[in-house]
Amino acid sequence: MNIQRFDTNARLSRVVVHGNTAYFSGLTADDRGKDTQGQTAEILAKADAYLETLGVDRNAVLSATIWLRDIGDFDLMNAAWTAWIDAPPARATVEAVLGLPDIRVEIQFTVAIA
Amino acid sequence: MNIQRFDTNARLSRVVVHGNTAYFSGLTADDRGKDTQGQTAEILAKADAYLETLGVDRNAVLSATIWLRDIGDFDLMNAAWTAWIDAPPARATVEAVLGLPDIRVEIQFTVAIA
Amino acid sequence: MNIQRFDTNARLSRVVVHGNTAYFSGLTADDRGKDTQGQTAEILAKADAYLETLGVDRNAVLSATIWLRDIGDFDLMNAAWTAWIDAPPARATVEAVLGLPDIRVEIQFTVAIA
Repeated sequence: MNIQRFDTNARLSRVVVHGNTAYFSGLTADDRGKDTQGQTAEILAKADAYLETLGVDRNAVLSATIWLRDIGDFDLMNAAWTAWIDAPPARATVEAVLGLPDIRVEIQFTVAIA
Repeated sequence: MNIQRFDTNARLSRVVVHGNTAYFSGLTADDRGKDTQGQTAEILAKADAYLETLGVDRNAVLSATIWLRDIGDFDLMNAAWTAWIDAPPARATVEAVLGLPDIRVEIQFTVAIA
Repeated sequence: MNIQRFDTNARLSRVVVHGNTAYFSGLTADDRGKDTQGQTAEILAKADAYLETLGVDRNAVLSATIWLRDIGDFDLMNAAWTAWIDAPPARATVEAVLGLPDIRVEIQFTVAIA
């Protein structure tokens, strides 16, 4: 069984690759003073770095689950999202209380690597 | 890298196919005057159309995530669900505030295509 | 199309295998008098049994979605989680109201089987 893990800590790996698929952890912004648009942009920049590590780009994103602290921030999230995405993946967006009070958005990707 | 996308708009594709797997976006009902049972039935009818486009049927559904606006509607959702499903997939059902106030249920599928 | 299903009832299968991937249903504890740490430990023991059925072990877990009834129980969940996990998977943890009031935690896995 061939599984590759990236950025692993005691609880999780940020990216896990198996077969032709990469599974990302839910990504959040480090600068949580930003609003939802800013946090989304930071998350997507983080995703770019992981995609580059995998030798792919944002066109390889197959599916995304997006959790918003306040579903009312849907347009703010989409402003950053539509500026970033090239080949739109499957997506679901729902509201959820997230790990810390100032986390406004969390995004989990499934990605093609071959 | 061979990825096929169906019903793509600026934000998402309703279905993305890669390798032997199809990733669906979270599907919701268009007629949101319906109750949760009616909305679930409409979602599943939409899924049927996408499955047919992919050349498979509801037996190809591998996994489902179901979000209910009110977890108290669990039985209403299941009434439509059990009438529809042939070969039950893996499934998780949780409550979440969804994209619009009158969206009672949203369902995201992962599907086998070969 | 070759799909294997395990522990199937009218609504769902606890595990569905297709290609090199196994999709688990959201698992919850049977003894819901336990706190979040206890419920998490019971869920992970259930996962061990399914993993054994599949001929793999906890190192084969690729991705996990964790729903907590109260995100404040994050550390209680992690206490059981870090005691269990060997090779940390990708993971996302969010708060959600779950199927019954005393369900404190639900975990859904994606697993490698080859």
